[in-house]
Formats: sequence, structure tokens, C-alpha cells
Amino acid sequence: MVPADLMRIEKLVVIGVGLIGGSLALALKRRGVVGEIVGLGRRVETLEEAVSLGVIDRFDTDHSAVQGADLIFMGVPVGAMATQFERIAPYINDRTTITDGGSTKQHVIDDARQILAGGASRFVPGHPIAGSERSGVAAANAALFDKHTVLLTPLPENDPSIIEQVTRMWQYTGACVETMDPVKHDRILGLTSHLPHILAYTLVDFIARGDNAERCFDLAAGGFFDFTRIASSDPIMWRDITVTNRESLSESIGDFIERLSALKELVDQERADEIESLYRFAREARNRLVDKRKS
Amino acid sequence: MVPADLMRIEKLVVIGVGLIGGSLALALKRRGVVGEIVGLGRRVETLEEAVSLGVIDRFDTDHSAVQGADLIFMGVPVGAMATQFERIAPYINDRTTITDGGSTKQHVIDDARQILAGGASRFVPGHPIAGSERSGVAAANAALFDKHTVLLTPLPENDPSIIEQVTRMWQYTGACVETMDPVKHDRILGLTSHLPHILAYTLVDFIARGDNAERCFDLAAGGFFDFTRIASSDPIMWRDITVTNRESLSESIGDFIERLSALKELVDQERADEIESLYRFAREARNRLVDKRKS
Repeated sequence: MVPADLMRIEKLVVIGVGLIGGSLALALKRRGVVGEIVGLGRRVETLEEAVSLGVIDRFDTDHSAVQGADLIFMGVPVGAMATQFERIAPYINDRTTITDGGSTKQHVIDDARQILAGGASRFVPGHPIAGSERSGVAAANAALFDKHTVLLTPLPENDPSIIEQVTRMWQYTGACVETMDPVKHDRILGLTSHLPHILAYTLVDFIARGDNAERCFDLAAGGFFDFTRIASSDPIMWRDITVTNRESLSESIGDFIERLSALKELVDQERADEIESLYRFAREARNRLVDKRKS
Repeated sequence: MVPADLMRIEKLVVIGVGLIGGSLALALKRRGVVGEIVGLGRRVETLEEAVSLGVIDRFDTDHSAVQGADLIFMGVPVGAMATQFERIAPYINDRTTITDGGSTKQHVIDDARQILAGGASRFVPGHPIAGSERSGVAAANAALFDKHTVLLTPLPENDPSIIEQVTRMWQYTGACVETMDPVKHDRILGLTSHLPHILAYTLVDFIARGDNAERCFDLAAGGFFDFTRIASSDPIMWRDITVTNRESLSESIGDFIERLSALKELVDQERADEIESLYRFAREARNRLVDKRKS
């Protein structure tokens, strides 16, 4: 039984049925708030897999399938959003709400405004801060967003009612919804998510191309595994994130290089006390974060 | 019942009863190959805790306690090894075997030769590739070394019989023992362990000192937690590792900065294909490593 005050989504179209789109579909089904879920994508195999896993009810490869949707969720890499906006543009109207799960926001907003023009008012940009180094619909799970934060970066032209609609959709998955300015979103996520991915990819690449690569990997301990886990993430998704957030990221990489050069100087000059202070400060900051999570 | 061919350690002295020294003591007790375990340290509280946890049988704060030991294990940070060598020097003889668990090897070897002179022939340098961001005796556990690698970097002046003795000691803990040249050890561990720690500490420090520090940490996802886990490691231990391996590390940090600068250029120039190739190459290298571990 669905409580009367639950918002129903009669027809949800998920474009790109991967980890995020698939998990959203499963979470909404679990909550019993959705009528029909249609998966839209290019690869029939993936879509068939999604049906057989019970993630979507049916699928289509033609974008006319978005017609009559209350809600369209775009779960494709951020570099593919523009093409998707172009393809859905002919079929959307004043009753359609569009949202996405892209990891960078300003670029997607620019795409939406350029392609959908006035229709961009129907687009509420979003980003669930959840994921995994695994990708694909087989990794989807209904609990992925439980107690995770979803950031919405609404547009001034959005009607409050559709912001509310997207907010409730995410709340039904168990997530906590916050709103944020898109530029700030890209800067903050650039630091806590994009930069670490870049460091992990660069470190593994660096070691793998070195003289002792095999021996290095043989002797890698648990710390190395955890540190590089995110280097197993989807290269296309992360290429797109890197390129679409390049201004903010380039600045962060540059700043990080400066910090690392400063530490190298401490190392070269054997300034042990300052090295210890830096490590101690970092450990305390991280431990506070861990304590905060626990409480 | 101890099988007749097991090597007994009648008296083991553990200098520095922390995560590594404590876990070694517990693992050897579990295997039933050790007579008495004496803990040696500065802080009586820690030593009392170690006794109450059943890690050591008794403790002392005076280095004369090493007299009559078959085996001395030095579980102190690498920067503290020299002082320990000085203090045990008066009490060691041709029956004493000394080994350590330090994360850098060349520096400890230099200390041993300088301080123990001919007595350095009784010292077999070692490094268990196991650990945790946790430290202290409360984190010690008998299974820490199970199936982990222990690297020994024996000296030309070591008698084969004491290399064999230290090898068997580690095998009793469940570890696989390999030998390696100390310079190569420091270079390889510099890449797979020391450099990642430095990157993790530097990243947390960088973000924690930034404008949006609180907001950044609030929005950090699982990837950030795993990536920075090693930034919760003991600052003194890691200060010592950084300083004692500074030549090799300085070179690795410098090389890494070059790689990161090259990637920054790809980002600035929007060279998406090359970014994707780098990410793909890194992911494949890491995934091969994960598969190897599993098998």
C-alpha cells in the first residue's frame, strides 16, 4: 500500500541504465512510488540485462520513448549529455521533468540551456554523491543512495514545483537532498572526488610504466589497494568529468603540485619537524572526519 | 605439543611493543615456539597494557633486559633505531640475533654498522609488508602477517644460520619470506607505500587548509575515505620513513610531479583521448593486480 501523500511517478524514463540509473530505478521500485520504468540506451544487450535483473520494466533505443514521461533521468557520462538533450528535445513538454546524475554540473547546465533553450526550465541538475569503482547495471542496487547526499543545483528558471518533485524522488531512495550553487559544486567535488581520482590514476600509470612495475605490484600492501581503488573506475566517465570540469580541476591540480613541491623541499632539506606537523595536521583532520561519520 | 623440528626461541625481547612488535609476539605465541617474551620500552603504561592483553609476558624499561635473548626484535620507528642500537650494544654477544621491522632499510643498516660495528653481523634487517593505519599494541593481532610478505635484506656479513633463524621466525607467523637488496627495497617501497602516504597526507592537508574545508569534508564520498585512509597513519613513524628514505623518495616525488604536470597539460588542452588512454591503462594495470591477488 502506497500512502496517499506519496508522489507517484507514473512513467519514469532512465537514459543510460548503469550503476546510477539502475540503482535509482531499483530504489524507487522498492519504495513503490513508480508506475512504469522505461530504459533507454544504445546497447540492446545491456537493456535486456536490465530487464532480466528487474531494474527496468521495458526498454527502447529510440528517443520517442520519452514521450509522456513524468520524469526523465539522464544517467550517461557528462560528455554524452548534449547528444541526449538533442534527442529528447522534440518530445518534451510542460509536463516533463528532467534531471541527471552527472558528476560535474556547470557544463551540463550550459548544454541544457544551449540545446533545450526555454525547455531548460524543465531541467533540475543533480548529483548523487554515491557510487563505486564498479560500473554497469549488474552493480546496481536499491540501497546505493541510503543515507547518501544528493546535491541539486537548481536553475533560476526552474519552477519550485519541479525542484520539489526531484527532491522527493531522491528522498524516496533514502538519500538526503541538499541544494548548492553549480560552480561551488564543481569546485568542491573537484577537490574531494575528481582530484583524488586523477592522483590515483596517475600513480598507477606512473608505477606501471616504471622499471620495477611487476615487483612493485607484487609487493603492494593493503594501503596501496585502498589508495588506488578509484583507479579502477570507468575511464570514459572520468575522462568526461576531467574535461568538463577542466578549469576548476586544472587550478586544483596546479595548487596540489605546489603543495607537493613544498613537501619535496621539506624532504630534501630534512626538515623533520615540519614534515611531522603536516602529517599530524592531516591525520587529525581525517580522524575528525571519520568521527563525524560515525556519529 | 611442539613438533621436534620447530626452532624454539627461548627468550624474545621486543623493543617497541606496538602494532608490529605486538602482532609478532602474538603470532609466535599462537604457534607455540617461544619461551618468554619480554617487552622493552619507555612508556610503562603501554607495556602494562601489553601484559594485560597477553601480548608479552613481562616488561622492562632498562636495556639490560636484552641480556640472554636469543632474538631481539626492534619494532620502533626507523628514526629511533640508532638510539636502540646504542642501548643494546653493551649486552649483545655471539648468541644474540637482532632483527627489525623498519619500513626503510638502508638507513637502519647504516646505523647498525656505525653503532654495532662488528656486531652488525648479528643484525638481519627485515620489513613485514603488513600494517594498518592503526598503531599501538591495542591494534596488535596474531593474524596480521598471515599470507603477507616479509622482506629480509640480509647483510653480506650475516652468517647464513641467523638469516635462517629470522626467516623461520617470520614463517611461524604465517608470512612468506623473501630476500631483497636494501637499496631496491627502499626504491620499490618508496613507490608503492611511501609515495602514496605522502600523497594522501598532502591531499588532506591541502583540502583541510582550503576555504571550503568543512563543506568539502561533509560531501566526501567513500572514494575519498579509502583514498585517504593511510593519512590516518602515525605521523612520527611516517616522518621517520620520509626522512630516512629521502633520496629515493625525493626522486619519486619529483617524477610524480612531472607526470601530474603532464596530465595537467592534457587537461588544459582538452586532449580527451589521451586522458582516456591514461585512465584506461591505469585501470587495466590495477585490475590485473586485483585479479592476481584473488588467484
